[in-house]
Amino acid sequence: MIRVAIIGASGYTGAESIKIILQHSQAKLVYLTALPEECSPVEDVFPQFKGRCNLPIEPLDFGKLSGLADAALCCLPHKVSMGFVPKLLDMGLKVIDFSADYRIKNVAVYEKFYQKHTDTANLAKAVYGLPELFRKQIKSANLVANPGCYPTGAILAIAPLLKENLIDTDSIIVNAVTGISGAGKNPSSKFHFPNMNENLFPYGIGSHRHLPEMEQIASDMAGRDVQILFQPHAGPFDRGILSSVYCQPKEKTNNDQLAKLYNTFYASEPFVQVRKDPPAVKDVAGTNYCHIFATCVKGKIVIFSAIDNLVKGASGQAIQNMNILFGIDETMGLL
Amino acid sequence: MIRVAIIGASGYTGAESIKIILQHSQAKLVYLTALPEECSPVEDVFPQFKGRCNLPIEPLDFGKLSGLADAALCCLPHKVSMGFVPKLLDMGLKVIDFSADYRIKNVAVYEKFYQKHTDTANLAKAVYGLPELFRKQIKSANLVANPGCYPTGAILAIAPLLKENLIDTDSIIVNAVTGISGAGKNPSSKFHFPNMNENLFPYGIGSHRHLPEMEQIASDMAGRDVQILFQPHAGPFDRGILSSVYCQPKEKTNNDQLAKLYNTFYASEPFVQVRKDPPAVKDVAGTNYCHIFATCVKGKIVIFSAIDNLVKGASGQAIQNMNILFGIDETMGLL
Amino acid sequence: MIRVAIIGASGYTGAESIKIILQHSQAKLVYLTALPEECSPVEDVFPQFKGRCNLPIEPLDFGKLSGLADAALCCLPHKVSMGFVPKLLDMGLKVIDFSADYRIKNVAVYEKFYQKHTDTANLAKAVYGLPELFRKQIKSANLVANPGCYPTGAILAIAPLLKENLIDTDSIIVNAVTGISGAGKNPSSKFHFPNMNENLFPYGIGSHRHLPEMEQIASDMAGRDVQILFQPHAGPFDRGILSSVYCQPKEKTNNDQLAKLYNTFYASEPFVQVRKDPPAVKDVAGTNYCHIFATCVKGKIVIFSAIDNLVKGASGQAIQNMNILFGIDETMGLL
Amino acid sequence: MIRVAIIGASGYTGAESIKIILQHSQAKLVYLTALPEECSPVEDVFPQFKGRCNLPIEPLDFGKLSGLADAALCCLPHKVSMGFVPKLLDMGLKVIDFSADYRIKNVAVYEKFYQKHTDTANLAKAVYGLPELFRKQIKSANLVANPGCYPTGAILAIAPLLKENLIDTDSIIVNAVTGISGAGKNPSSKFHFPNMNENLFPYGIGSHRHLPEMEQIASDMAGRDVQILFQPHAGPFDRGILSSVYCQPKEKTNNDQLAKLYNTFYASEPFVQVRKDPPAVKDVAGTNYCHIFATCVKGKIVIFSAIDNLVKGASGQAIQNMNILFGIDETMGLL
Repeated sequence: MIRVAIIGASGYTGAESIKIILQHSQAKLVYLTALPEECSPVEDVFPQFKGRCNLPIEPLDFGKLSGLADAALCCLPHKVSMGFVPKLLDMGLKVIDFSADYRIKNVAVYEKFYQKHTDTANLAKAVYGLPELFRKQIKSANLVANPGCYPTGAILAIAPLLKENLIDTDSIIVNAVTGISGAGKNPSSKFHFPNMNENLFPYGIGSHRHLPEMEQIASDMAGRDVQILFQPHAGPFDRGILSSVYCQPKEKTNNDQLAKLYNTFYASEPFVQVRKDPPAVKDVAGTNYCHIFATCVKGKIVIFSAIDNLVKGASGQAIQNMNILFGIDETMGLL
Repeated sequence: MIRVAIIGASGYTGAESIKIILQHSQAKLVYLTALPEECSPVEDVFPQFKGRCNLPIEPLDFGKLSGLADAALCCLPHKVSMGFVPKLLDMGLKVIDFSADYRIKNVAVYEKFYQKHTDTANLAKAVYGLPELFRKQIKSANLVANPGCYPTGAILAIAPLLKENLIDTDSIIVNAVTGISGAGKNPSSKFHFPNMNENLFPYGIGSHRHLPEMEQIASDMAGRDVQILFQPHAGPFDRGILSSVYCQPKEKTNNDQLAKLYNTFYASEPFVQVRKDPPAVKDVAGTNYCHIFATCVKGKIVIFSAIDNLVKGASGQAIQNMNILFGIDETMGLL
Repeated sequence: MIRVAIIGASGYTGAESIKIILQHSQAKLVYLTALPEECSPVEDVFPQFKGRCNLPIEPLDFGKLSGLADAALCCLPHKVSMGFVPKLLDMGLKVIDFSADYRIKNVAVYEKFYQKHTDTANLAKAVYGLPELFRKQIKSANLVANPGCYPTGAILAIAPLLKENLIDTDSIIVNAVTGISGAGKNPSSKFHFPNMNENLFPYGIGSHRHLPEMEQIASDMAGRDVQILFQPHAGPFDRGILSSVYCQPKEKTNNDQLAKLYNTFYASEPFVQVRKDPPAVKDVAGTNYCHIFATCVKGKIVIFSAIDNLVKGASGQAIQNMNILFGIDETMGLL
Repeated sequence: MIRVAIIGASGYTGAESIKIILQHSQAKLVYLTALPEECSPVEDVFPQFKGRCNLPIEPLDFGKLSGLADAALCCLPHKVSMGFVPKLLDMGLKVIDFSADYRIKNVAVYEKFYQKHTDTANLAKAVYGLPELFRKQIKSANLVANPGCYPTGAILAIAPLLKENLIDTDSIIVNAVTGISGAGKNPSSKFHFPNMNENLFPYGIGSHRHLPEMEQIASDMAGRDVQILFQPHAGPFDRGILSSVYCQPKEKTNNDQLAKLYNTFYASEPFVQVRKDPPAVKDVAGTNYCHIFATCVKGKIVIFSAIDNLVKGASGQAIQNMNILFGIDETMGLL
């Protein structure tokens, strides 16, 4: 039984992680922490867990944590995270970190989009936690950088094309729409119900923080520099990201070749389903699955991918990573 | 042409008032004010008015206002409102006040549910702005207390029964569901999109501030003390209030008698439509109409009423009142 | 391992049942059936199950079913169901029936609200599947009549009061709002997205088919005839029922007494949570839980209960019943 | 006073047209028609018009229509429309046709995407009703082909770039998301509330019928053949289309140049607002406005446009066209 501590349990990814582990037959929650002002019985923060989880959410006490847990899901925001992760690793915990702090290998790029990096030693050792591409490295890691939600959807959509060198690497446009749980639990005017309901809008034009992460992994796949035009949008639903990806094939291709490529590439992946028709956000909501459909339109390749931003885009993928780290069935708790 | 100033124009009722007056052929906007921190070109606060309204939203300057306007729509919160209204009246403006400050005649009751009243002189002169019941008094008023959204829906539903002394005055249960625009524009955790979307919940149990207002007018109608069990709920939509009202008839009645009662009572009312089937919130969304249906069920009378909380429940009714105050066609700008 | 056949798997309750059993460690799906025109690989009917469930949905073949399954979840509409259940029972299957056909003991009442009953023999033996009230009888049953969604929410809200004889049995008003999954998967004008979105309305006034079921069980609890004014509404969300129940106490009571009553009554119930604050639909969405809060307002008792209509109101409760029938942990697959 | 007949008044564009004309001070409704099975008092079809419009919806009777109206808004589906329009024109009516029948000048293209064309004589004379580009021609037309909703949003977004020959004409990608009112009023499984709510998906891949219309007008603007990759999506909201358009500039440009280009191009247009920030669907919902923002990202030009599909994308634009046809203020009824 993997004993799991959730550091930063009071947000949406914390709640989703709690929910999944409650259904996980080989893992159990032992410690939930948050900032002091957000601490209380878990049912006061999350009424949905009343009678299902009796742990309190309490301030992190490293003394108490010592010896208590095997794994830490670190659901903290970037910058905060790298203040805690070194200590958690020193205590011998396997750490899956939800923040951006350990995702971007190029420190200069990280510091341009975020802030000064204070833990470059662990950054160098961290493994990017997209199991479909880096399963082998994850197996032997101590620190997994759990991917961002947008990069998960976009990278799974284009990885086969990049790996096989089939597209112009400066032609990729990722037009994505996310549900609002992706914005986190802090209220804001933009996401106030009467403003967001019945609405849809683009944001983060040319500057979204998930761009360098996306380009880094895409470049890894391609073996050369990849440039992506990434345009996120917010839509009036809770969960899910639909990525509509447009790119230019190097040579004329067709739908059969694309279907074969994707089916082969993801043949043994439990959580990637290659569809024969375009996926819908609701097909994957509440699941750890990514549904993908690729097709040719007017000389371009168009790929659609759908994930649940809180599951495959965050907590589900983290637990998938945890399962790999501990050598148990990768799908445990996630079917 | 009625020259209209909107005092407190930066909220949802301000926006709705602007929208209606832009379509009003005998009224025009001359002045929009708000707290200094909310001032800017109107299109920055409300992008929907870009190219439609060129006034800025600016801090209230009584010097500037003097001689500029004929009417003031005072869209301020309670307590704030009674700090401004006396001055507006002194300047000779006709004032329609959206707050609760001038609705409750019994100062002790007001002070129990709100705070100390500082303008009891004008309170005594204010007229309750429900035209269907108080049109004659509104005509000659200088200060109209624009009704709350819940009381508008509930009172229109039960007024005919109370007026005709047909029901037990302590048997009334008002179960109402409001859209979230009723909560105003300030973001909060409860109404953060991912929390409110796909949700529905009761609130204000036994203590909602619209209760004393509702009971006061109901008692006026009945000519005796009326007690109401009023239970509001919040539902995942922008606009509208559906009130489901249950009460005990004094004597057995039937659907034909009810239909006749309601049709007669509201026969000449432009904005109250007595239906032969139950109304839906969407039937009245964006309009100044109240749709009502009354029926007998298991010995009780059940009445459903639907209004748009921002229109008949706020800005539309305010402009209906303004039209009456200035002796023009009551429906101007509202059809 | 309980081998489960789902008869009528192509609707929403079928999908929800599939989903739960996929996560159930002591049950597995062996057979999914539907009308011939709705048969195909399960992923074509429900894309969300692609890669998760490889069974086809096929026309029911009793020969094939023989010996294949231990339990049948019969997700058929009323009338259709009683055409299949006798045969399923004859084959030795334990049957949990989702329709109304075996819920109403009084054949005349059933026939008034539905149609002629053709299987009164099994009706007499069927047990009403609300475990919180009838667990003992369920244990030894072969046929469980799974309760309706509205009755589940309403009965759990008032059972303690009726059992203890604390309220006037003709004073109960159940004002309930359901999500639209409750209307089933067949498209209709009322529930066409642009009509239902941003809408809320009452329906089934005085005539909803869940009324006699509700009154039957309430009367069982009270030991005398109970009359309920039940008013359903449809709201713009997928899942959940909020019941706001109003009733008249026989003697003055208070919140402490109510809290004690409910906490005691449901003390050992895994799926009923007595709250200290009013529940929200979203607190129970996707779970088998019922959240309840009871309070005194103006001399009346008001009780709020929230359930997910597809889980505790249908498939979750069915699997809770199945777990009881087979003597395994009642919460299996449902936490 | 323009006397208006609405042919095919029972759908969403009919309702929106009725609503606008009710607020129009120089036009009035004189005749509402529909298929016999959809005829009844307007309030039975559209409860929102109870007390606001007393005309019945009745089967079209050319004898009755004769001399009754000056203009016909023909809200019929394609194919049906070209069966009625010739007769309406023969009667001397000015016709604004909502269908695709008179939009596509190339009969072969029309027949590929739709069906055989039976009124090519009038097709040749019809003017494409996008006032921002064809106002002069509209003025003297008798038959206006009211544009499709997607083409309206997309063409307004790219017209300035095409007209000025600034972009590669085979580089244009239009990624658009529409609200569900665009799908019309007929219920379907895809748009059944529990299926569409909380959902978002692409459709019409490579084959949407609005593509040839879009390419025809774009080619007109450019003076050469333009190829567009148009990808529509359906999103969980009632109204609005957000078009996110990506294209390749011929020469490096910058945001200032783009702002200047768009502001100049649309300087005198009442209903096109060039924004300094990206538009949101809700900014234009319920209005006849198109909000546009153009910007440079990574060497490409990205343009966002937002319209209400039922107003600027259908009924509002039709009435804008009607105002032009009759020589009155183009914005009448639409502010």
